[in-house]
Amino acid sequence: MRPRPIFYVSDGTGITAETIGHSVLTQFDGVPFVTRRLAFVDNAQKAVTAAEEIRHAGDESGVRPVVINTVVDGHLSQLIAESGALMLDVFAPFIPPLEQELGMPRTPKVGKAHGGADTAEYEARMNATNYALTHDDGVQANFSDAEVVLMGVSRSGKTPTCLYMALHYGVRAANYPLLPEDLEAGELPAKLRSQRAKIYGLTIDPRRLHQIREQRRAGSRYASMEQCRWEVEEAERLFKRENIPVMHSTHMSIEEIASKVMQSLGLNRQLY
Amino acid sequence: MRPRPIFYVSDGTGITAETIGHSVLTQFDGVPFVTRRLAFVDNAQKAVTAAEEIRHAGDESGVRPVVINTVVDGHLSQLIAESGALMLDVFAPFIPPLEQELGMPRTPKVGKAHGGADTAEYEARMNATNYALTHDDGVQANFSDAEVVLMGVSRSGKTPTCLYMALHYGVRAANYPLLPEDLEAGELPAKLRSQRAKIYGLTIDPRRLHQIREQRRAGSRYASMEQCRWEVEEAERLFKRENIPVMHSTHMSIEEIASKVMQSLGLNRQLY
Repeated sequence: MRPRPIFYVSDGTGITAETIGHSVLTQFDGVPFVTRRLAFVDNAQKAVTAAEEIRHAGDESGVRPVVINTVVDGHLSQLIAESGALMLDVFAPFIPPLEQELGMPRTPKVGKAHGGADTAEYEARMNATNYALTHDDGVQANFSDAEVVLMGVSRSGKTPTCLYMALHYGVRAANYPLLPEDLEAGELPAKLRSQRAKIYGLTIDPRRLHQIREQRRAGSRYASMEQCRWEVEEAERLFKRENIPVMHSTHMSIEEIASKVMQSLGLNRQLY
Repeated sequence: MRPRPIFYVSDGTGITAETIGHSVLTQFDGVPFVTRRLAFVDNAQKAVTAAEEIRHAGDESGVRPVVINTVVDGHLSQLIAESGALMLDVFAPFIPPLEQELGMPRTPKVGKAHGGADTAEYEARMNATNYALTHDDGVQANFSDAEVVLMGVSRSGKTPTCLYMALHYGVRAANYPLLPEDLEAGELPAKLRSQRAKIYGLTIDPRRLHQIREQRRAGSRYASMEQCRWEVEEAERLFKRENIPVMHSTHMSIEEIASKVMQSLGLNRQLY
């Protein structure tokens, strides 16, 4: 089967088009796709150029391209449709029922879904990202201004999950790596005892941990199966003894971990 | 006007529901909303609980709630619809035309759009995130394995943009902060000369830079209007002299900057 060309076409970044397109395409397993994002298509000339590229991809592959479209200007969408592709308009199905329910017409806004760096929310996200970067190694004196403290052994997924929560939800997420000395002590480090309600534990399959650490420091004691198994066992024991909720990160993406941790701690933040 | 309750309901993280919901709602300016995400609604009991919460929000606010729904199981969606909310199903409009075009029925997959940490793409994202974290201050000896090098004065938006590109597109994004000594030298640092094709410059309104730096080190020379103005002027002069493409980050979000930089450098990566 020849791969079918999929185009995410947007007058902005194309993030909305690609997010929904990706979700829909995962429901057609086994169909080969090649995807391409055409962002910032916000005038007639760019729309005509986009249509040419889409038509060309269809001619080359011999299968009709599919366009996942979030361009809000109807005229530009028509120009893109002249490519001959199957046009799937992301917004069209939602607008009429919402207009009716809300009793007002929409105001089409070009490229604004992810736009703008001039809002309080955006500043909160940037501040949270700085917070996550500066509270990433457990050396901070206190965690009183953290909203979440992820805890786990080295390479259990804490850092990228914290960055994700900060960048997208503006959550001040700190992390605390459980070092061998913490595991030997077998109790929460003193500076974290008062923060217990915000702590969430991450654990991981020791074999997966071993693989990940081998990529970083092959052949080291740090990466050895024995060390990984000991650390994970002790960390899980600590979480249990201290009554800290735990999640197994082995087969979960950072998006899933973040979503579950925030739900569990009652952090209902808007996604950006 | 009473704020209208909006629920993002999903059998997974709710990211797709919230992304499209946010895009659609920005087109109804001036309507007050309160949004809430109900994630991992993947069995009948959770669907009934969700419906109760939605109905309750409608009763309390006196306005009918709106549900942006990505639950793929039709039976669960029906249970949620019993809340009386306006149901907007994200996938429904796209499935029939795609089934027809592709000549096959979809395979509904619960919560899988953002799932899974077991793919090569996921590993690439995590590796890229580590790369961005370890190539964040310009001290590295070389940038030969970088795909992008963002360059700009301190606090011009380099770090969060690099993290975003790494986390979501798996792009190995490094950044190089232009320090006063680089600006005085007035030319590209030696170790970056061979990497010119990957370098993208960020610049920023000096007044905005002054505000941002004041938040970090109030009253410092670093944050002073005079210093900010000098650094930005010299950085822009350097970019021009060295023929480096430049973007003004002042009013742009990291999503917009990332999207434009990747488009400009021809990096067509899938979004996760």
